[in-house]
Amino acid sequence: DVSKDVDENLIKQFLSEVDTVQLQENLRELTKVPHMATSQGDEQTVQFVLKRWQDPESGLDKAWQQEYKVYLSFPNPNNPNKVTVVNPSNSVLFTVREREKPYTPDQEDPEVVQPFAAYSPPGNAVGKLVYANQGKPSDYHLLNQTIDLRGTIAITRYGGAGRGAKAINAAAFGVVGVLVYTDPLDINDGFMSDTNETYPHSWYLPPTGVERGSYNKDFGDLLTPYLAAKEDTYRISPEDITGIPPIPTQPIGFEDAYRLICELDGKKAPDEWQGGFNCTYNFGGPGFKPTSSFNNSDVKLEIFNQGKILNSSNVMGVIRGSVEPDRYVIYGNHRDSWVHGAIDPSSGTAVMLEITRVLGRMVKQGKWRPRRSIIFGSWGAEEFGLIGSAEYTEEYFTKLSERTVGYINVDISVFANATLSASAMPSMQSVIFKATKQVSAPGSDSTSVYDNWIRYSNRTSPAHGVIPRVRYLNGAGSDYAAFVHYLGIASIDMSYTYDRSKTNARIYPAYHTAYDTFDYASKFIDPGFVSHQAVGRSAGNILIRLADSLLLPFNCNDYAESLEDYLNTAVTLYEAQLKAKNISMEPLKNAVANFRRAAEQLDKVIQSSDLANETPLNIRKINDQLMLMDRAFLNPLAFPDEYGFRHVIWASSSSGKATFPGIADAFAQAESSGSSTDWNKVHYHLSVVTQAIEGAADMLNEVI
Amino acid sequence: DVSKDVDENLIKQFLSEVDTVQLQENLRELTKVPHMATSQGDEQTVQFVLKRWQDPESGLDKAWQQEYKVYLSFPNPNNPNKVTVVNPSNSVLFTVREREKPYTPDQEDPEVVQPFAAYSPPGNAVGKLVYANQGKPSDYHLLNQTIDLRGTIAITRYGGAGRGAKAINAAAFGVVGVLVYTDPLDINDGFMSDTNETYPHSWYLPPTGVERGSYNKDFGDLLTPYLAAKEDTYRISPEDITGIPPIPTQPIGFEDAYRLICELDGKKAPDEWQGGFNCTYNFGGPGFKPTSSFNNSDVKLEIFNQGKILNSSNVMGVIRGSVEPDRYVIYGNHRDSWVHGAIDPSSGTAVMLEITRVLGRMVKQGKWRPRRSIIFGSWGAEEFGLIGSAEYTEEYFTKLSERTVGYINVDISVFANATLSASAMPSMQSVIFKATKQVSAPGSDSTSVYDNWIRYSNRTSPAHGVIPRVRYLNGAGSDYAAFVHYLGIASIDMSYTYDRSKTNARIYPAYHTAYDTFDYASKFIDPGFVSHQAVGRSAGNILIRLADSLLLPFNCNDYAESLEDYLNTAVTLYEAQLKAKNISMEPLKNAVANFRRAAEQLDKVIQSSDLANETPLNIRKINDQLMLMDRAFLNPLAFPDEYGFRHVIWASSSSGKATFPGIADAFAQAESSGSSTDWNKVHYHLSVVTQAIEGAADMLNEVI
Ligand SMILES: [Ca+2]
Ligand SMILES: [Ca+2]
Ligand SMILES: [Zn+2]
Ligand SMILES: [Zn+2]
Ligand SMILES: [Zn+2]
Ligand SMILES: [Zn+2]
Repeated sequence: DVSKDVDENLIKQFLSEVDTVQLQENLRELTKVPHMATSQGDEQTVQFVLKRWQDPESGLDKAWQQEYKVYLSFPNPNNPNKVTVVNPSNSVLFTVREREKPYTPDQEDPEVVQPFAAYSPPGNAVGKLVYANQGKPSDYHLLNQTIDLRGTIAITRYGGAGRGAKAINAAAFGVVGVLVYTDPLDINDGFMSDTNETYPHSWYLPPTGVERGSYNKDFGDLLTPYLAAKEDTYRISPEDITGIPPIPTQPIGFEDAYRLICELDGKKAPDEWQGGFNCTYNFGGPGFKPTSSFNNSDVKLEIFNQGKILNSSNVMGVIRGSVEPDRYVIYGNHRDSWVHGAIDPSSGTAVMLEITRVLGRMVKQGKWRPRRSIIFGSWGAEEFGLIGSAEYTEEYFTKLSERTVGYINVDISVFANATLSASAMPSMQSVIFKATKQVSAPGSDSTSVYDNWIRYSNRTSPAHGVIPRVRYLNGAGSDYAAFVHYLGIASIDMSYTYDRSKTNARIYPAYHTAYDTFDYASKFIDPGFVSHQAVGRSAGNILIRLADSLLLPFNCNDYAESLEDYLNTAVTLYEAQLKAKNISMEPLKNAVANFRRAAEQLDKVIQSSDLANETPLNIRKINDQLMLMDRAFLNPLAFPDEYGFRHVIWASSSSGKATFPGIADAFAQAESSGSSTDWNKVHYHLSVVTQAIEGAADMLNEVI
Repeated sequence: DVSKDVDENLIKQFLSEVDTVQLQENLRELTKVPHMATSQGDEQTVQFVLKRWQDPESGLDKAWQQEYKVYLSFPNPNNPNKVTVVNPSNSVLFTVREREKPYTPDQEDPEVVQPFAAYSPPGNAVGKLVYANQGKPSDYHLLNQTIDLRGTIAITRYGGAGRGAKAINAAAFGVVGVLVYTDPLDINDGFMSDTNETYPHSWYLPPTGVERGSYNKDFGDLLTPYLAAKEDTYRISPEDITGIPPIPTQPIGFEDAYRLICELDGKKAPDEWQGGFNCTYNFGGPGFKPTSSFNNSDVKLEIFNQGKILNSSNVMGVIRGSVEPDRYVIYGNHRDSWVHGAIDPSSGTAVMLEITRVLGRMVKQGKWRPRRSIIFGSWGAEEFGLIGSAEYTEEYFTKLSERTVGYINVDISVFANATLSASAMPSMQSVIFKATKQVSAPGSDSTSVYDNWIRYSNRTSPAHGVIPRVRYLNGAGSDYAAFVHYLGIASIDMSYTYDRSKTNARIYPAYHTAYDTFDYASKFIDPGFVSHQAVGRSAGNILIRLADSLLLPFNCNDYAESLEDYLNTAVTLYEAQLKAKNISMEPLKNAVANFRRAAEQLDKVIQSSDLANETPLNIRKINDQLMLMDRAFLNPLAFPDEYGFRHVIWASSSSGKATFPGIADAFAQAESSGSSTDWNKVHYHLSVVTQAIEGAADMLNEVI
């Protein structure tokens, strides 16, 4: 029926059918074995997802496996990476653990990959050790004032800078090798002992746990930027990859980091550099204290990482739309993990499979078919840089751009069980609120996910008063990146997460370690799977609304509010100095005002329209205005050095300012250099953003 | 009525109302005074077009003037450019004419701009003269084998290379100034005398006629690439403009060129360099013959061109669509000329105004309203590099990209009155044929424009047999450029043109001179305005079909035929050598085959659909497939050095091969350099084109 709107009864039925036992069994099955991208275990999960999506009782209309040939990086299983302390006569005084200590049989699985820094080059590096805090440029700069860093090995802690940036920043100062560890202060609220404080006694990270990770700056397959990585696709040479560590780099556990750091000589590091160890963090002499048994010794990295071009699979599934099959709502999550990946990403995959089970059954039973088509993506090789989703968007760029209404990403569905967290295009705020008001908070009958959320994270909106804070999708932290930044598609990323008053952990402690297992997840993250259920219900509710609403549930006035916020910040921070440079911010102010006016006008049209009697083409006209508005924010030339970042509002910024990223970064650069070329770049970005906003307003205006 | 298709009776009525007297009077009014971009005369044409489009009896729904601040280049009216021959004691022996000789009062109008090379820098250049043929790199290369070109002035003839390229190529060899003239062989079929052979006795160019022109390589406002040129838009510095002459450059008439060339000393130039003068074209000593009165003398250029940022206007008009207002058919032509511009562009504007008069009246009388919206654009500053249309597409990029069904460009509507000529996306071939079969050839009742056309220019199509040859839109010769190359919108450029068996003129002889007047046009180009009428009827018929057809009249099988042609050429030219480099063309072959399959499949769906009973959204779905297919050919990164060229099938190429331009140019470069970087670039372009074609096929495939 062309004029059928979303069916609230169907949503109720959906909510009632999302089942904690199903979620638990999904997770159990998905985490049976380690399933790092392209491994045997990964292929098992491919088959499992396929089986579920092809199930005659509860499957989708169609499901298939789709491969890309992508560039990955692995340690050599026959020649593990080694980190040692060697004395001047080349005797090994100390060896860093090669594997995490087993507490359950999971960790003993031979398929558990040795901790490593993906895309770190192979090679040996020997030198005196220094402690470089988080490996930010400012950290090395400070160190370099008292220590000649050339030829040293730097040990850095996770946080503050991207993984690969720690090594790139280091190399600029002549550092020859980098170690990275997770400080107990940053991940364990200080707890360090595995006899009673850490897993298996709590959710905290055992002393030998190591966060693996990819150390590349850009997302997508590194050899095929802007081209889908097929068999014969042109590939750049691996030597021409930029944004990866130029020097050997290896992550280690804090048990070993403790030994190294607490023996360091040299000046005491600043207070902000001190971590959770019960010793003073010194800079390093460089090297160790004279009183240490490591005195005069070097730290040696022997890295044997190998680059490999391998087939990685996405699993795709679709439910064909009844009325508008050529409009897509996409829901996705990656499938690959570093080890067993119970939380990352299988908690999200468990939710996705439960949503497809409930919806698939309705479809198979003939009870429901969405108005628009729904596409599910189980992405491969996300851990190596969002590769599966990026290649997918590269391959189907125009089709996805022209037809996709929205993208929902649920990677880690449950970091912790305190509250919802959501990041999204501001236009999607209202549908997130609507859906989460209908879902009970985990373990409560009387409180909604929304009511619970507003207690943990809120803001005061000029239009709506106090509301939960929906965050922005500025980064490239999961598979939404290509949809937001490359395609300009309205997107949501959501999960259940921490009570920040109870922990400072930068992420759940077992993240990317061998302890992220079913046992860990079901005991310490979400016992009873009630948070999984709440996320599944919330995300599924939004999914149904995007797919079934006659008029897309997008509110562009909420987008205007965010642009106004950005504008106010920009005016406060920059206007005086720009005026002095003869650069006017008036056009930007006008553009934001025009956007607001257009959004209000369109909203009036929507509010006053008699939906049931509108012609299908009139509804489609408005929906296209709403769907395509965000595309006007794309500029493929604005950030030439950043792969995939084309959205001039949400692009990532190094400025740390909550405002237009291109202007903010260019301003910071111009202020620091003072060069007229750099001030011109500020003006350029001002014009780019101004015209993008005008273009977006045009999409909302009367069509002719 | 949602299911109403194009009305053949309405088309008949339209055809019957297109009137030669109206066309003649339009042209008379448009050419009253010179109307170079931003001049007083230009503003008069703005007001004239506005008045017509706002006419209560025959105007459009809405019309308005829209300004951009753009960078133009003019001679200094108080200090005209000078070209002289000066002897060693600095006496002036000869001065090139500053104005064309008047035959009618038109040429005496003080607003006739002195001939000049727009965007040539001001400055003086003195040196010995050499004859450099067409100013191609190969021409200078040959010359340079016997003459040290450093410090010389080169005289070149129009043709063979772009205007600005003649000077850019010259500067690379140390040439310090360039003259450009039109050789009688290239424009006048050899005729040279104004006493009986040339205008006012015929259509041929008088000896003092000079082709003005813009000497920039890139189109669009040169200071604001990819940004609309508004008041506060960021502008690059004029010194940073690339692709314009680096040395003083000036066009002159052949009367003066004759004096200079026939006195040249040195070796006889090759046969292909000889032109229409009754003397031997020598290279130059450099400089003149010892027997010449110019012996030992230099040629001196004193150029006083000035860059100016001025407001240039587009005039825009719309007829709002009844059923699909959010789908646009755009029809445009530039309004600005160099002088009176009777043929270029007013013959096209006369046609546009006649089409809007007939359609506007139907709308005002309530007899008709198109299904889709029609937008008319009277572009400004085309002569300076397609500026008005380019700025328009920059400003409304997303809106136009998402909503525009097709663009029709009629610039010079009548070059000559022999036959139709049309260039278009291959998908539009069928609607061009359908329309032109319904229009009588000028001066004939029994022959159609189509039947006449096929006699002058045809080809054998595997699918259709012998048909008129529709050309490709590879270049950037008029305002279709931004629509085709930057936006990927299906476009048509059309005109009436020569019988090539009767003339070799590279273009109509009065092109860009002071002789392109109403008198010239009405006496020698289209007496009776019957060719204007045929073009108006043909273009208007196509316009109505694009606006009113229930299903868009696009045939993607015809697009497939062109891709197959390109593929066959590419395989013939490149496959063996690519194989030797381990680069496979199989993916490209598969892509073209997939496109063909998808086109056939969609065609079947269209043929088998019962239009009257299809739902509006099903029709829209197919129309969107047809409309948006071409967008998949866009790649904003494929040609980083070419402003606006994003369409990987139709981008311009310097290879001279009728095949995929990126591959062809990269192959030529790789073959000549042999470097592996260059061979990689061939592979890159092969992947770009392959994936673009796959993406286009995806747009035609089943939507889910
Ligand atoms: Ca790729
Ligand atoms: Ca511009
Ligand atoms: Zn993840
Ligand atoms: Zn992860
Ligand atoms: Zn023209
Ligand atoms: Zn012209």
